[in-house]
Amino acid sequence: MGEKMENLRRTHMCGNLRVSNIGEEVVLMGWVQKQRNLGSLIFADLRDTTGIAQIVFDDTLSEEIFKKAEKIRSEYVIAVKGKVRKRESINKEIPTGEIEVLASELKILDEAETPPIYIKDDDDVSESMRLKYRYLDLRKPSMQENLKTRHKVAKVIREFLDENNFVEIETPMLTKPTPEGARDYLVPSRVNPGEFYALPQSPQLMKQLLMVSGMDRYYQIVRCFRDEDLRANRQPEFTQVDMEMSFVDVDDVIELNERLLYKLFKEIKGMEIELPIKRMTYDEAMERFGSDKPDLRFGFELVNISDIVANSSFKVFSETISNNGEVRGININGYGDKFSRKDISKLEEYVKTFGAKGLAWIKITNEGITSPIAKFLGEEELSEIIKKINGKENDLLLFVADKPSVVFDSLGNLRIEVAKKLDIIDKNDLKLLWITEFPLFEYDEEEGRYVAKHHPFTHPMDEDIELLETEPEKVRAKAYDIVINGDEMGGGSIRINNRELQERMFKALGFTMEEAWDKFGFLLEAFKYGTPPHGGLAYGFDRLIMLLTNNDNIRDVIAFPKTQSATCLLTNAPTAVSPEQLKEVHVKLDMKE
Amino acid sequence: MGEKMENLRRTHMCGNLRVSNIGEEVVLMGWVQKQRNLGSLIFADLRDTTGIAQIVFDDTLSEEIFKKAEKIRSEYVIAVKGKVRKRESINKEIPTGEIEVLASELKILDEAETPPIYIKDDDDVSESMRLKYRYLDLRKPSMQENLKTRHKVAKVIREFLDENNFVEIETPMLTKPTPEGARDYLVPSRVNPGEFYALPQSPQLMKQLLMVSGMDRYYQIVRCFRDEDLRANRQPEFTQVDMEMSFVDVDDVIELNERLLYKLFKEIKGMEIELPIKRMTYDEAMERFGSDKPDLRFGFELVNISDIVANSSFKVFSETISNNGEVRGININGYGDKFSRKDISKLEEYVKTFGAKGLAWIKITNEGITSPIAKFLGEEELSEIIKKINGKENDLLLFVADKPSVVFDSLGNLRIEVAKKLDIIDKNDLKLLWITEFPLFEYDEEEGRYVAKHHPFTHPMDEDIELLETEPEKVRAKAYDIVINGDEMGGGSIRINNRELQERMFKALGFTMEEAWDKFGFLLEAFKYGTPPHGGLAYGFDRLIMLLTNNDNIRDVIAFPKTQSATCLLTNAPTAVSPEQLKEVHVKLDMKE
Repeated sequence: MGEKMENLRRTHMCGNLRVSNIGEEVVLMGWVQKQRNLGSLIFADLRDTTGIAQIVFDDTLSEEIFKKAEKIRSEYVIAVKGKVRKRESINKEIPTGEIEVLASELKILDEAETPPIYIKDDDDVSESMRLKYRYLDLRKPSMQENLKTRHKVAKVIREFLDENNFVEIETPMLTKPTPEGARDYLVPSRVNPGEFYALPQSPQLMKQLLMVSGMDRYYQIVRCFRDEDLRANRQPEFTQVDMEMSFVDVDDVIELNERLLYKLFKEIKGMEIELPIKRMTYDEAMERFGSDKPDLRFGFELVNISDIVANSSFKVFSETISNNGEVRGININGYGDKFSRKDISKLEEYVKTFGAKGLAWIKITNEGITSPIAKFLGEEELSEIIKKINGKENDLLLFVADKPSVVFDSLGNLRIEVAKKLDIIDKNDLKLLWITEFPLFEYDEEEGRYVAKHHPFTHPMDEDIELLETEPEKVRAKAYDIVINGDEMGGGSIRINNRELQERMFKALGFTMEEAWDKFGFLLEAFKYGTPPHGGLAYGFDRLIMLLTNNDNIRDVIAFPKTQSATCLLTNAPTAVSPEQLKEVHVKLDMKE
Repeated sequence: MGEKMENLRRTHMCGNLRVSNIGEEVVLMGWVQKQRNLGSLIFADLRDTTGIAQIVFDDTLSEEIFKKAEKIRSEYVIAVKGKVRKRESINKEIPTGEIEVLASELKILDEAETPPIYIKDDDDVSESMRLKYRYLDLRKPSMQENLKTRHKVAKVIREFLDENNFVEIETPMLTKPTPEGARDYLVPSRVNPGEFYALPQSPQLMKQLLMVSGMDRYYQIVRCFRDEDLRANRQPEFTQVDMEMSFVDVDDVIELNERLLYKLFKEIKGMEIELPIKRMTYDEAMERFGSDKPDLRFGFELVNISDIVANSSFKVFSETISNNGEVRGININGYGDKFSRKDISKLEEYVKTFGAKGLAWIKITNEGITSPIAKFLGEEELSEIIKKINGKENDLLLFVADKPSVVFDSLGNLRIEVAKKLDIIDKNDLKLLWITEFPLFEYDEEEGRYVAKHHPFTHPMDEDIELLETEPEKVRAKAYDIVINGDEMGGGSIRINNRELQERMFKALGFTMEEAWDKFGFLLEAFKYGTPPHGGLAYGFDRLIMLLTNNDNIRDVIAFPKTQSATCLLTNAPTAVSPEQLKEVHVKLDMKE
């Protein structure tokens, strides 16, 4: 067992000591980063959450203490009392590099075995080791910094929302299973045999009911759950900054959130973003970037050449168009010489993963045009294409011909892939963008019906309401996403605040009124008693922290994350439980198949 | 469908208008509290979350608007533009009572049916109606105030902890089932067939691991879950203010939390509590109050008369003592005349619910002593008893003879019951108290072994460690509870920070080392690599809000609470789910018996 602190009480944090502390007697506590024994002198780097201070043990100490100092090893937890003095050999690498502490007392509070991973930022141990020994991984300064930034971001958000009269209200975690949307995590009820709670995918309905209740402005930084197959940077439980406001329309929500984003980037990154933030309709974003979350840090915009090639003798193009498809291209302008035929083949393989059948290309060199498709195109056609896409010497033009969704998906991703390959994205650049006027519905081929693009509570644009029953595909929503550097950081909408309109919406989604009332009766009932216009927005908090800490791994901004198979390598959750435990909640395993 | 807000944007909140606003043109939005039609004048009380403003529609309005104003009913949602003017008949009951708004524009944003419950604080509708129509119940000013206070308390706590270098860190909700403690809520895993997560009963182990990771100071306002049969004022999901600190001992945690409590009562209630807060050991609390959460707002302390009656001819007393029992009494001093024999019989019935076999009593009147037991006691014995318990004229003395746990439980509760009956508790009084030096273990008759009184990670008092293996019942813990007016508001402890001691603790709890490693291996493993002394505390947030809002119903301080059978009357959660949904998570119903 370790020694006790006894009368020692920490007076300072290691990383905060400066020249101004010279002469002071201090008590520090922390972990030994390393110890060097020079015989008559022992040096130890002592680490706490603020940084490192150098401790010196010399021969003025009692033999007992010096012997203890000889014993200390990396990751021992110690308490040291001593006097701050000027260091002889200054270390300019660390903020405490001009001072050291000459020890007069030492307690070894806990010993340590050699840790299985090194406690330093550039240790390149496997991620599974890092997750298994998370408590050691979190000792790294960079990981501590990530969690501290996360704390600070939450603080700034709360301050802003407090100032703007939002009330933080907690909503239930044991909720009703939702029939629409992603897959729920289920929780069997013990008291109500055969019944289940669901963990919330978001507090959507609860926050709307809070608006019905007149709470006016709500927010919550809240855990949400989706039992979906995990793609990279998705977690089964994630955190959402969730807000809702009454008596607002689209502009009000956007304007408030712009002020929030301004404050956030100012206080966390010291950057002043330009307000108002650029807005782009969904249609324009698709047309120009093939994506509803375009990265504006580089060009390579999509150009539609369908009208030029509609009657082309190049059948791949013209037949696509006559089958309701289209042909679009992007101009990798100024980088033609960076792409060999082999490179272009790889790009073709890449677009095929998005369903494209091929990738047509034209390279413009100082010796003329190189292109496998040039021979199929008339000279005039070729020059019209080049003119429309603004092709110049050393440009590479890439084309996809397919149905619109495949063209957008292929080229939207291809422009990012190419920009990454060329390494032309400025990491310090920051491009914020609102995407507005999303379609209210999208057609679900599998279910053979329209489904809500956002959720069934999204308000249609006022001028499109009359199309709900007749041309649902044309109805735009009062929905908006905030996109930063090509990542969707948040999104929201104005909600339906009228029972009749909500019922029309459910009908458009193919629900009978009976089904609608069965599933969402409590909302429809609530809408009978006076519902204010309301809307809100939710940010993906984990993603926001990734952005603000320059991390591209979501697990680096969560203290105890789960793996892609939804397990915790530290605790081994989930685990088997006893049959008695299952019996109590009225379920048994169903492991057939 | 309701009208649109169109160009109207809210400029003021109803409850904030004052004489200083007279002459201003304002736009208000909210719910109609009531409408009175006087023919040529229509009055409406308009309500939002800040309060009520009176709106006047007069005959200067267009017929169209006046007609609309005639239509509005209670709970309609409207937007009104108008000029603030002095009111003719001042209403001193409300803050806006000196002004009114003469309307120039009116939009009916949503109509309302007659609500099934009234929107006023003194409506005494059944609680199940209030929970079913929670969104209407929450429209009541008192309920809005409760939620706003909850928000403010969280804010004050966060501010304080921020200032004191705590980092808010989120811990997982999908955790490992815990073998000790209360019953877990289980969540079947889809990806890992046959395995289960548990919802956290508290983030205890995670926060300890954060201390092992050097995060130094952690806090979280966090949802916790216990699947226990619900007593009054318990919820299946509840919120905890959870904190943990490194390099601290008992006094450090207590001192910091005293400053937090001071700030909280100051900012929320405008009260300055006296620091330091009184401390009492567990033993003293039991001895004097029969409870580890004594209410100090009144007396009636326990007095042990075992030594006096050990050899009494009153066998009920003397035999109890010879069977290792004891006899204690309380003096209901000054209230003897308030209790008839019938009243005392009721008190006897009351103590029987705590296992007491009877309640002996002595009443001292101006005519002498009335007592059914006096005849069994010698005169000297009787006068010694009265002297020890300080009996005077008009006192009622109540005695229980039984094993100590029953005596404490009976009299500890009886003194509260009597004080409530007498209505002598000053609601404005505030008595804070730390209970310290809890026993580390308590003996579980059912399991036939010692179990941890707090949890298995609690540090024994240093001077008692040597008794761990030999006299576990004598080992006191570095544990502390904060008790306010007889309610436990929070508790915590210094934790074991050494693997060897943790293993001794598990052994004392009857675990083999194999079991201990199987269940808590990741903690024991973590303790290999340098663990700082650490400890913390958690407050029951819901209870704290009850105290700070003077509510005695926990459901009144939670937006969407559950009933005592763990259901949500608003959404009808929990509910049945489809067999397909169950199959996906590899369970089926087990409804036998």
